[in-house]
Amino acid sequence: MKVAVIGDGGWGTALAMVLDRNGHETTVWGPFPEYLEEIKTTGENKTYLPGVKMPASLNWTSDHAEAVKDAGLVVLVVPSRFYKPVVEAFKPFIPASALIVSATKGLDEQTHERMSETAEEILGREVAVLSGPSHAEEVARGVPCAVAIAARDHSIAEQIQQLFLNDAFRVYTLEDVVGVELGGALKNVVAVAAGISDGLGFGDNSKAALMTRGIAEITRLGAALGAQTETFMGLSGIGDLMVTCMSRHSRNRGVGERLGKGETLDDIMGSMKMVAEGVWNCQAAAALAGKLGVSVPITEQVNAVVHEGKDPRQAMLDLMSRAPKPEQE
Amino acid sequence: MKVAVIGDGGWGTALAMVLDRNGHETTVWGPFPEYLEEIKTTGENKTYLPGVKMPASLNWTSDHAEAVKDAGLVVLVVPSRFYKPVVEAFKPFIPASALIVSATKGLDEQTHERMSETAEEILGREVAVLSGPSHAEEVARGVPCAVAIAARDHSIAEQIQQLFLNDAFRVYTLEDVVGVELGGALKNVVAVAAGISDGLGFGDNSKAALMTRGIAEITRLGAALGAQTETFMGLSGIGDLMVTCMSRHSRNRGVGERLGKGETLDDIMGSMKMVAEGVWNCQAAAALAGKLGVSVPITEQVNAVVHEGKDPRQAMLDLMSRAPKPEQE
Repeated sequence: MKVAVIGDGGWGTALAMVLDRNGHETTVWGPFPEYLEEIKTTGENKTYLPGVKMPASLNWTSDHAEAVKDAGLVVLVVPSRFYKPVVEAFKPFIPASALIVSATKGLDEQTHERMSETAEEILGREVAVLSGPSHAEEVARGVPCAVAIAARDHSIAEQIQQLFLNDAFRVYTLEDVVGVELGGALKNVVAVAAGISDGLGFGDNSKAALMTRGIAEITRLGAALGAQTETFMGLSGIGDLMVTCMSRHSRNRGVGERLGKGETLDDIMGSMKMVAEGVWNCQAAAALAGKLGVSVPITEQVNAVVHEGKDPRQAMLDLMSRAPKPEQE
Repeated sequence: MKVAVIGDGGWGTALAMVLDRNGHETTVWGPFPEYLEEIKTTGENKTYLPGVKMPASLNWTSDHAEAVKDAGLVVLVVPSRFYKPVVEAFKPFIPASALIVSATKGLDEQTHERMSETAEEILGREVAVLSGPSHAEEVARGVPCAVAIAARDHSIAEQIQQLFLNDAFRVYTLEDVVGVELGGALKNVVAVAAGISDGLGFGDNSKAALMTRGIAEITRLGAALGAQTETFMGLSGIGDLMVTCMSRHSRNRGVGERLGKGETLDDIMGSMKMVAEGVWNCQAAAALAGKLGVSVPITEQVNAVVHEGKDPRQAMLDLMSRAPKPEQE
């Protein structure tokens, strides 16, 4: 089958490599023709997936029509800040019969919508979601991992599952699109908090407490937004949260660590070529929680550190010193 | 208040330091008088908590009656293999008014009972449970952490909470004794599996998938044993699982890592002075699951590696290659 991956970042490239390995004729779309030329010449996506050899069978293009021509599957995986205009630009070219899956982990900054919600409004049809614990670097190298694919129409999830599935890339299907997508978006905020804890020199115990209360917070907000609470117990919930909070690969955790060590957000963002979604998503998550009356103390503290200049140590102390109470209140 | 900690291992010593910091007159019981003399002389519990200075105000004794004399709180924290005979030996000496809390994470090898179940049968009264993500080394150094205390009688949990609580040691109360205690016991088995994954050189994605399916497995077995499933979402469930699977301090993860690298169990156990509960608990957990008809693939594979000499790589491959299916089946 011909398949298209919209987005030449690390995750898009890794997913394209999985589809290529499975024998699909795979094209990756990126916005900058010169950069794609460089990938083709060097056989490496140096900025977003350094050190990984690209298979010669992968196609690269910055042309919208060419990217999705005759595609049976379109994977949307552009950063949340550019998601809406990119999907709008592709709308006229996506074949009517193509399956569509969204793999971006984030929320729309303006509307606070989930990415697949935005895509469905633009494209007028069902958009599945792929999410789970899956660092691009490891997936690209064929290290075993397992992810979730969610669609309201279960047959859509199963068709997409069959396209991605191989020995090193396990795929599970669910129907709870809202839960799978929110788990992926909201865990980045907790990862920033976990990084702050690391940067301040706190230990594993502190970080585990933070992660545990983080998943409870995500679950509360998710339930208020219509997700099933069990979903957050799965790969796309705690699974992804764990990988993101404990891995040296995680950009969101890394931003938090540098904040915890005293760097300013401007310095950090100025030195990063890649996107740390948690930095932006904490505002959207805090706004959603405020509207729905859900308590999200971790998200609020991350937001205060990132966007209001609050001292990271004070933010962590404020979290730790909340009054003791029964755990499940 | 006078308090007694039964067990001079790393966790017992760390809990004694918390109680001592809170101003309680604290006595630690250990089985070997010569070793306790060495601790008193050197000011260090060198075998179980190396590098940490013991406060001079801590008392150390190997005398059962002296240890618990006038104690208002007794903390049981001896390895599961020695738990039953030690509690039996203390039975005649524990004051009738003392609160009792069990902090050992394990299952009885013969009866497969939880530790507090065993203690309640011997002592004939309610025994609370303390569990959660809390490496002894970090607690001893005053690094912030949060734990759960569970008792069927909520006022007992609250009284014990007040004795332990301080700025660096946050305590939450629950009523689900079964869930809190099983979370602590069963996570060690998953930690051995996570260590095997590390030892084989698998990545963060593989480990997160293993941990996610591990907590699902623990939750299934716990529910069949009468626990509330929400408890496994909390500190004593995923919180403790995360710390144990990701920390360099964890002995259970460490044993798994050495197994994954090809060492034999005999070599590993011969070189360790401390107890890795997961090595023994996997048998009890597999037996309980078998009796109740609960599917526990990770526990079964750990048991096969540890006790039946199965090749660790084959065990991990057998776990990864199970047929794809909807996540929540």
